[in-house]
Amino acid sequence: MDVFTAMKERRSCRNFSEEPVGDDLIARILEAGTWAPSPLNTQPWEFIVIMNREIKEKIFIEADRCRQWGLETSGWKWLGKYSVDFLKSAPVLIVVVGDPRKSGLDTLQEEGSVAYQHACAAAIQNMHLATHALGLSSLWFTLFDRKALRGILDIEAEKFPVGLVCIGKPEGESMQVPRKDVEKKTRYLR
Amino acid sequence: MDVFTAMKERRSCRNFSEEPVGDDLIARILEAGTWAPSPLNTQPWEFIVIMNREIKEKIFIEADRCRQWGLETSGWKWLGKYSVDFLKSAPVLIVVVGDPRKSGLDTLQEEGSVAYQHACAAAIQNMHLATHALGLSSLWFTLFDRKALRGILDIEAEKFPVGLVCIGKPEGESMQVPRKDVEKKTRYLR
Repeated sequence: MDVFTAMKERRSCRNFSEEPVGDDLIARILEAGTWAPSPLNTQPWEFIVIMNREIKEKIFIEADRCRQWGLETSGWKWLGKYSVDFLKSAPVLIVVVGDPRKSGLDTLQEEGSVAYQHACAAAIQNMHLATHALGLSSLWFTLFDRKALRGILDIEAEKFPVGLVCIGKPEGESMQVPRKDVEKKTRYLR
Repeated sequence: MDVFTAMKERRSCRNFSEEPVGDDLIARILEAGTWAPSPLNTQPWEFIVIMNREIKEKIFIEADRCRQWGLETSGWKWLGKYSVDFLKSAPVLIVVVGDPRKSGLDTLQEEGSVAYQHACAAAIQNMHLATHALGLSSLWFTLFDRKALRGILDIEAEKFPVGLVCIGKPEGESMQVPRKDVEKKTRYLR
């Protein structure tokens, strides 16, 4: 698939078929992730591929708790109706975890490193594009408490779960979300 | 260009021809950035496109100061020889700036929001892939002090410069950097 088509056609999917995703496709998606650039080529990402029903259930319960917390804290009414059932129905969840020690010169900065997170996010974007090109759909999910997720997935305290990617065959159509005119977001210094 | 080819063939370039990049190509690269996903479709990115020689010179001086600081702080000897001249020779620099108020539910969290930075990083990755598919090369550059960069580019204090992307025609070949075997970075929970 053409790279521009993949970028433009990719949609966030919240309605997955339970049909399993083959290991060969998962391997291609993960490999795509690793082709992202990283500071000093540190490749700060690690992947946790979750197909286990009980673990997905635990992540669902935690996400639903966060949704409740978000509803109470923000008062955003849509959160009351927002179902995170896709965490159970998506056949594969991939958590991308970053290692703050594998960053650039920002490991020396007082405020701590962030470039490793950006590299992980670039890897996640590659994974989304690969997923779409392979005829699957995905969702970048971040509605979790990092500490709780570390507990469920046995992630070391010093590592940072950057995102959770739900992957599977889409059921029904996902909505196309428009973009603002890029010129309104751009300043030219000529 | 095929999306997998673009991911795999993209290289970090540090040696640019001074040949200008047309506005049409810049527009396509920026548009590619905006097709990245973002929390609640907040599109938290802004772009500053720099072709101005004096501003590039200021960014170069600041980056070179950071390089010196990094050399003294880290003792990493390669920094002594690392030239950041490409900040002057690359015909276009694009700074991607994120707005922390345009994030997901993490805007409500005590530790502050980060998802908007991840969205900006995904936009940067789209821009790299677009650049490569258009026959140009790019570099994701982060060796700058955010406060100093805000000053040079007149960026509001509350916004976060996520990265600086150098873009131009490559001069010579860029090195292919290998990746670790993805299986060694992956844990399966079946």
